[in-house]
Amino acid sequence: MTRPLSVAVAGLGTVGTGVLTLLRDNASIVAARAGRPIAVTAVSARDRSKNRGIPLAGLRWYEDPVALAADPEVDVVVELIGGSDGPARALVEAAIAAGKPVVTANKAMLAVHGAALAAAAETRNVPLAFEAAVAGGIPVIKALREGLAGNRIARIAGILNGTCNYILTQMRERGREFAEVLADAQKLGYAEADPSFDIDGVDAAHKLAILAALAFGRPVAFDAVHVEGIRRISALDIAFATELGYRIKLLGLAQQVESGGIAARVHPCMVPQAAPIARVDGVFNAVVAEGDFVGRVMLEGRGAGAGPTASAVVADLVDLARNRFTPVWGAAAESLSGAPSVPMSAHVGAYYLRLMVVDRPGVIADVTAVLRDHGISLESMLQRGRSPGEAVPVVLVTHETEERRMGAALERIGGLDAVLEAPTLIRIEAG
Amino acid sequence: MTRPLSVAVAGLGTVGTGVLTLLRDNASIVAARAGRPIAVTAVSARDRSKNRGIPLAGLRWYEDPVALAADPEVDVVVELIGGSDGPARALVEAAIAAGKPVVTANKAMLAVHGAALAAAAETRNVPLAFEAAVAGGIPVIKALREGLAGNRIARIAGILNGTCNYILTQMRERGREFAEVLADAQKLGYAEADPSFDIDGVDAAHKLAILAALAFGRPVAFDAVHVEGIRRISALDIAFATELGYRIKLLGLAQQVESGGIAARVHPCMVPQAAPIARVDGVFNAVVAEGDFVGRVMLEGRGAGAGPTASAVVADLVDLARNRFTPVWGAAAESLSGAPSVPMSAHVGAYYLRLMVVDRPGVIADVTAVLRDHGISLESMLQRGRSPGEAVPVVLVTHETEERRMGAALERIGGLDAVLEAPTLIRIEAG
Repeated sequence: MTRPLSVAVAGLGTVGTGVLTLLRDNASIVAARAGRPIAVTAVSARDRSKNRGIPLAGLRWYEDPVALAADPEVDVVVELIGGSDGPARALVEAAIAAGKPVVTANKAMLAVHGAALAAAAETRNVPLAFEAAVAGGIPVIKALREGLAGNRIARIAGILNGTCNYILTQMRERGREFAEVLADAQKLGYAEADPSFDIDGVDAAHKLAILAALAFGRPVAFDAVHVEGIRRISALDIAFATELGYRIKLLGLAQQVESGGIAARVHPCMVPQAAPIARVDGVFNAVVAEGDFVGRVMLEGRGAGAGPTASAVVADLVDLARNRFTPVWGAAAESLSGAPSVPMSAHVGAYYLRLMVVDRPGVIADVTAVLRDHGISLESMLQRGRSPGEAVPVVLVTHETEERRMGAALERIGGLDAVLEAPTLIRIEAG
Repeated sequence: MTRPLSVAVAGLGTVGTGVLTLLRDNASIVAARAGRPIAVTAVSARDRSKNRGIPLAGLRWYEDPVALAADPEVDVVVELIGGSDGPARALVEAAIAAGKPVVTANKAMLAVHGAALAAAAETRNVPLAFEAAVAGGIPVIKALREGLAGNRIARIAGILNGTCNYILTQMRERGREFAEVLADAQKLGYAEADPSFDIDGVDAAHKLAILAALAFGRPVAFDAVHVEGIRRISALDIAFATELGYRIKLLGLAQQVESGGIAARVHPCMVPQAAPIARVDGVFNAVVAEGDFVGRVMLEGRGAGAGPTASAVVADLVDLARNRFTPVWGAAAESLSGAPSVPMSAHVGAYYLRLMVVDRPGVIADVTAVLRDHGISLESMLQRGRSPGEAVPVVLVTHETEERRMGAALERIGGLDAVLEAPTLIRIEAG
């Protein structure tokens, strides 16, 4: 058996300790699959005295993570610090500059600086691996970049944030409002004290930007991702969704449109209940890829947590130990596509529109007149209850139309006297 | 860009022509991901004059597939002839002996001769790739062998035969009997004229044997797989399954049991409707893997057909073009486990038992007495209709018990005067 692969781990939070635990517990399995032992020999974390429940004796300890890149005994640097900039980025840049392969779980860094990091890695011919950055333990990076390599991918759709999926699932199963479920999720540790990164869709957008780059073979373009979160989803909308045969999911979607451009967006969607992705509940993640030869493939599993993320980090280490190399975005820079990003205003799809209106004659006529004026046709309408003079919900489901028409119509509808709140708009997706 | 990878394809049936079509249609995408063009330069098939709808001009043509292995211009041999022995095996052996990497979709050959072929490949350090052998386009070989490499796998469960899943789905959705649906499936081309390979579970068992070898890191052991097909499933059982909250699926199951041995079996199962695998319908395949760190991961997609299978073959070719190498069973022979196979008689689980009995006093007492005598306790019982003196179905669901007890009890129950047909036994699985 060959000499062990010597690994440095920066960041000893739950994922970092998970990686150390996995490499200790499954050492012989990992060595067999990697063709040689994989041994952590150096670590870096902020607080040396903290008890992390794992033995750290015998490991070289660095206060400054960037110093790991300079350790001549280190073969591979694992970056688990997090954050798009700061020490995480400094370490990855230093490791690449030193010619050391990097494994990272850092989706924010890859989404924001991935193009530059990939260029640096390619110039120095250094592997930069990131299976753990998207969908935790689900081997979706490997599937897209290698397993489906023969396909022209037309579309990817994913449940990419477990916190949002947990909240939406709880809202549906318990009939509760967003704020209550969020508070519970925070108590249970499923949501952060400051949850905005998750519930506003930013985390999902980071992951989607990475998946889109892989699926369509082009440099990552996070700024072009349209992002909406789940704060405005109400228990009422979830109940209407069920009644209409849908589930509400926060999806990341990327697709090649007819013009040849790439549309990438994260927003709540109404998905038909029969679609496989509609049934992915709780903290689970899933990614659907549609290839021209393979058809639809769906991968489902735990998208976060120490175990699943460690599993993904170690898969990358096994690839490195076996010298299995894949370019960052699946192809060399010169072979990447220059397909432009398509703005959200060009989106075409069906819409669910829920209004709170005063229950009085003529309101529906006013609303539908606005839709007609914008060339939007209705598939169905639903009105619950009768309370003359009071507020009642009205749901309208449109046929396919353009986002920009819908936006213009919505502005006028929101301005009608009888419309009491800002309308809720949820896009309908095939799943 | 490096010199093209020169590929020989043996077998120009639907899959072989699919591979040629994919490599032609997606040539630039494949070249970008492979780091160099992948070009078919030689082929072998029985009938040279047959119109296959693809241009074959300029390709070297061989009557004898084994001759492909000797062609000095061929870098990789793709075996798509099929059959566990005969020309397929001869070609693969010859290619390995000649030091040429092999890509094959041949599950029967791998299940039956995989241990010897892997040993030959290892001795000569030649890659033997077979993503297309299991679950078509779903990259499940790659996921198990690389993506989940850090995990001790406890259990895998799969819907591995699209023909059976299609038949069972049609039986449920249309309330029809097995024989009728099979006849329709044959007309539609979803089942072969001689369907026994599929419906008796042999094809699923070939695939399960391969997956079990990868999941548990041991040489393939097809003979140790317990195999039952779906011929005996009736519309009545499917209706009872629905009533009890289950779906009937033909599953391939492999798990590590407490003794350290590996149990591998293919048989119809009652799976809770809420289990993700229960919802995989029609010709779709799915594989669930349970790892100690990753938790449950499910992969779902099309398990057969020209496009999905070609997608898998080309993924293997891209790996070869990139020099990404993985040992056949995920680890070198010296690191494989010698875990013994566990016989079906040692299986422990819950059972669904459906009897047709004469509707008269005392029958249920006789049946339940037999179960009691064998130490089998009941979870529930269901009896439909009352027709004194005539045949009525009785359904019994047991708590967990041993297969050998169940077998003994069944023999006695089948011998009771009031029991009119051989009892139907379906094992209950978590999914």
